[in-house]
Amino acid sequence: MTGGNENGAVLIGKKPVMNYVLACITFFHGGAKEVSIKARGRSISRAIDVAEVVRHRFLPDVKIKNIGIGTDKLPQEEGEGDSAINVSTIEITLVRGTMQ
Amino acid sequence: MTGGNENGAVLIGKKPVMNYVLACITFFHGGAKEVSIKARGRSISRAIDVAEVVRHRFLPDVKIKNIGIGTDKLPQEEGEGDSAINVSTIEITLVRGTMQ
Repeated sequence: MTGGNENGAVLIGKKPVMNYVLACITFFHGGAKEVSIKARGRSISRAIDVAEVVRHRFLPDVKIKNIGIGTDKLPQEEGEGDSAINVSTIEITLVRGTMQ
Repeated sequence: MTGGNENGAVLIGKKPVMNYVLACITFFHGGAKEVSIKARGRSISRAIDVAEVVRHRFLPDVKIKNIGIGTDKLPQEEGEGDSAINVSTIEITLVRGTMQ
């Protein structure tokens, strides 16, 4: 209760979009300046849904600060060869309010 | 044959990632300075796969110039009420080479 968190991170999984929207809003209401929404693979489109719902429906003063994409290499199970599986990632950083 | 195209656009659908990767490479080899990869809904994760494969595996001098997200409103069929369906969109702009 001594000041809010500076940052929050929300990792997107398979739950409904609104669960993650609520998590973002909770971070901002707790004093977070920035919230990062992270996802990989098929959850990526849900991450964008979350960002869009947060800023258009609930917190109009929230802007997108940055969107980064990347690739994670997942190690294969033993006996399946040594080629790694690549999975795409996204990180959407939302920022609240006063800065340009 | 009189100079290349300045820009290309690749709309991501349900085909394999490599089809769209080839489309991007073809634009760049034809002289395009920028190629926009556009997707919406569940195709968004494939759009990121395409961008990652193009720049990491085939064209290391290609950089991400910008990533934008948005929402498209799809009109409902008649008789299903007048609420529109919202679908998230992404546009990844790749740029080749020399500029910072």
